[in-house]
Amino acid sequence: MIGIVSGVGPYAGLDLAKNIFDNTIANVDQDHLPLALLSVPSIIADRTEYLLGIVKTNPALAIAKVILDLEKMGATLAGIPCNTAHASEIFSLIKSKLTVNDSKIKLINMVDETILEITANYPEVKKAGVLSTTGSYQFEVYSSPLKKHGLKPIIPSEKNQKEVVHQAIYDKDYGIKACSSPVTAQARAALLSTIEKLVDQGAELIIKGCTEIVLAVPEKHICGVPTIDPSKVLARSLIKHLDPQKLKSS
Amino acid sequence: MIGIVSGVGPYAGLDLAKNIFDNTIANVDQDHLPLALLSVPSIIADRTEYLLGIVKTNPALAIAKVILDLEKMGATLAGIPCNTAHASEIFSLIKSKLTVNDSKIKLINMVDETILEITANYPEVKKAGVLSTTGSYQFEVYSSPLKKHGLKPIIPSEKNQKEVVHQAIYDKDYGIKACSSPVTAQARAALLSTIEKLVDQGAELIIKGCTEIVLAVPEKHICGVPTIDPSKVLARSLIKHLDPQKLKSS
Repeated sequence: MIGIVSGVGPYAGLDLAKNIFDNTIANVDQDHLPLALLSVPSIIADRTEYLLGIVKTNPALAIAKVILDLEKMGATLAGIPCNTAHASEIFSLIKSKLTVNDSKIKLINMVDETILEITANYPEVKKAGVLSTTGSYQFEVYSSPLKKHGLKPIIPSEKNQKEVVHQAIYDKDYGIKACSSPVTAQARAALLSTIEKLVDQGAELIIKGCTEIVLAVPEKHICGVPTIDPSKVLARSLIKHLDPQKLKSS
Repeated sequence: MIGIVSGVGPYAGLDLAKNIFDNTIANVDQDHLPLALLSVPSIIADRTEYLLGIVKTNPALAIAKVILDLEKMGATLAGIPCNTAHASEIFSLIKSKLTVNDSKIKLINMVDETILEITANYPEVKKAGVLSTTGSYQFEVYSSPLKKHGLKPIIPSEKNQKEVVHQAIYDKDYGIKACSSPVTAQARAALLSTIEKLVDQGAELIIKGCTEIVLAVPEKHICGVPTIDPSKVLARSLIKHLDPQKLKSS
């Protein structure tokens, strides 16, 4: 059974589940893979706020607890649809907590799978644009592994990250976390203007490196370049690990 | 914690979860209510096929097991986002299985809540149109309680139900269960033509009495009458029962 750590944020969990269903070969309800989703957002501190030192408790502790609960429900593999939670300061503590608790669950790393997707399916790309939270930005969640694979990350300026991208995700009035159904025109416009800048700087694809960004910019191609949705990559990886014959061709 | 019996069908579980998030007062991830969703469709027989005698095992047994598993995860109340599972032949066995197993979970009845919504908020309505699966149609999942409340159910002819509505949901090529993301134009057109007929026959509102129908006809008003989405009604009822202060005004 696939386990989903939801609540980071809540809609991101649904988006991952939908990507799993959308990418499964199924004609009737009964063809779909078993899946458990657990959303307990009140116990999981904001990942960016932790990385920026605004809150002190590492959200890894609560995320590991959710994964252990999913395992108790029967999950044999799990994914966390939150890019910022893949910062090594958080992700490595999740993994060590699972080890300490004798967990047998296979935790799929969404960032690793995304880099693999790019190197395997976009071999001509040398410069990858990255949109993300400020936590992921400062802790190089995508920039660092991209560089390790010989790719140049193209990221917003610090000013643009702080004033435009961060606000599009977190602003209490128009940000995606406060208004996601539907996303506000202001949040979408802010992200689109940033994508345009990244493409102008040579980005040959755009990694939508925060689950909220996918809600605002669902397009597979934008400004003439393809976009990569890590949640979709994670969904396909989870299916492939559980039952490869059920994976739709991409 | 709210428990969702997903897998009946898989997308209906996500739709209920989304309705819960959409109807919760929340500015940050942490404001959202705790929720567990369990989707094990392979063990739950098709509800309509059971009611029509095509499969012998009552899906109530598997649904009750899912609810008990949700309770083990901490769910104190639960909803089943499948109208057909509310046929008394199925729903009453679910309830008795929960009682036998000493379950303390509060199972909210989506059909009862929908009838309550209509009588409370549409007091002028005397004739309610119902679109549903053939299982719900034959076992009067909505028609019977509507009549009990003095409302006249307006339903498709037997021929239309069998050849148009049923196929829109179940056809292996164009039906919503096989193609829901996106729904095919053929399935949507089939349902719209039926809604038009029901309104011509005097229906003053339309109950979208199958979770798949909501995916194909998301409109809140159609053919000049309001539509009722039982999944949204169930979502609001679940929030109200768990934490009434978190319920958005409708």
